[in-house]
Amino acid sequence: MNLELLREATRSQMPDKRWQHTLGVVKTAVELAERFGGDAEKAELAALLHDYSKAWPINRMEQIIRTERLPGELLDYDKELWHAHVGAWAVQNEHRIEDEEVLDAIRYHTSGRADMTLLDKIVCLADYIEPGRDFPGVNKMRDLAQHSLEEALAAGFDSTIKLLIELGKPIFPLTVTARNDLIRQLKIQKDTTVNGG
Amino acid sequence: MNLELLREATRSQMPDKRWQHTLGVVKTAVELAERFGGDAEKAELAALLHDYSKAWPINRMEQIIRTERLPGELLDYDKELWHAHVGAWAVQNEHRIEDEEVLDAIRYHTSGRADMTLLDKIVCLADYIEPGRDFPGVNKMRDLAQHSLEEALAAGFDSTIKLLIELGKPIFPLTVTARNDLIRQLKIQKDTTVNGG
Repeated sequence: MNLELLREATRSQMPDKRWQHTLGVVKTAVELAERFGGDAEKAELAALLHDYSKAWPINRMEQIIRTERLPGELLDYDKELWHAHVGAWAVQNEHRIEDEEVLDAIRYHTSGRADMTLLDKIVCLADYIEPGRDFPGVNKMRDLAQHSLEEALAAGFDSTIKLLIELGKPIFPLTVTARNDLIRQLKIQKDTTVNGG
Repeated sequence: MNLELLREATRSQMPDKRWQHTLGVVKTAVELAERFGGDAEKAELAALLHDYSKAWPINRMEQIIRTERLPGELLDYDKELWHAHVGAWAVQNEHRIEDEEVLDAIRYHTSGRADMTLLDKIVCLADYIEPGRDFPGVNKMRDLAQHSLEEALAAGFDSTIKLLIELGKPIFPLTVTARNDLIRQLKIQKDTTVNGG
C-alpha cells in the first residue's frame, strides 16, 4: 500500500472542502491516538479514508448497499449514515485495505456501535472535533477530549441525538447503543477510581 | 372477572398517591379511547392495572424477572422499566387476565415498543398526561392529544429521551424504536393528506 497514492485517490473522490475536513480528521486522529495510547498509523489510515465515499451520488450508494448486501436497515435511516458502510466496502474493493480494525473504524465512524474499539472511538471523535468543525458544543467536546475519549464522544452522541429530536428525524438505534455503552464504561471507570483504582 | 374486586386488589398494592394517579390514568385512557376509536373497556382495564406492581420492592421485581424469564435486558436499564413487565406477569398470574392486548398495553406502557397497538398508545399516553401529572411539556402533550395520539406520544418519548440524556442515564433502545415508528407513522399520515388523502 502506497500512502501517497492512496491520498491522491481519496482526494479525487471529493470536493476540496471535504478534503480539507479529511486532513483535519487525520491530524486530530493522530493526536488522539498519541494521547490515548492508540495506533497512530492505523488512526491516520482510517481517518484518511473515513469519508472516501461521502461525496458519491446517493443512487450509487443505495445500489451498493443493495447489491453488496450491506446492512439493509441503513436505507430506513438518514442518508448521512450510508457513506460510512459504502466507504469501507469501497476501500476494501478498490484499494485492498484488509485490516478489519481500520475497516470497522470507517464503517462505524458516523453511527458508532456497541463495544467500540479504541480506533473506532478515535476516528469517530476526530470527525466530530477536527479544527474545521463549528457547531454548538464542539468546544466543550474539545475540552473533554483533553482527558477522556469516552466523555467527549458521549457528549457528541448526546448532541446528535438531541439534534435529531429537534429535527423530528429517526434516531439510529446503534447510536443509542454506542452512547449507552460509553455511559456504562464511564460509570465503571468512576466506580473503579472511587473504590481505590 | 369482577371489576370491583380487581379495583380493590389493585388499590391494595400501592400507596394512596399511586392509586390517585391510577384513577387519573383510567379517566384519561377512557377519554382517549373514545376520542380515537379505541376499546374503552379494554382501556379502562389496562389503565387500572398498568401500575399494579409499581410499589413492589425492587428485589421482588428482580427475582420475578429472573425466575419467570422476563426479558433479562431490563436489568441493564432503569428500574422504572421493571414494574411494567412484572405487572403484566402479576395480573395474569394473580387475576387470570388473559387478554394479550391488555397484557401488552401494561407490559409496554413505560418503554413503548415497535408497532404499538392503539391500546398501547392510549395507555402509554394516558400515563404521561393524566390530570395529576406536572412536568415541563405536559400541557403541550395535552394539547397535541386533542387531535393526534401519535404526535402527543412522540413528544412524550422525545422528552423522556432528552431527560435521560440530561441525567446521563442509559436510554432504553425500545423507546427509541417506538419513537422512530411514531415519527414514520406521522410522516405517512402527512404525505397521505398532502397527496389527496
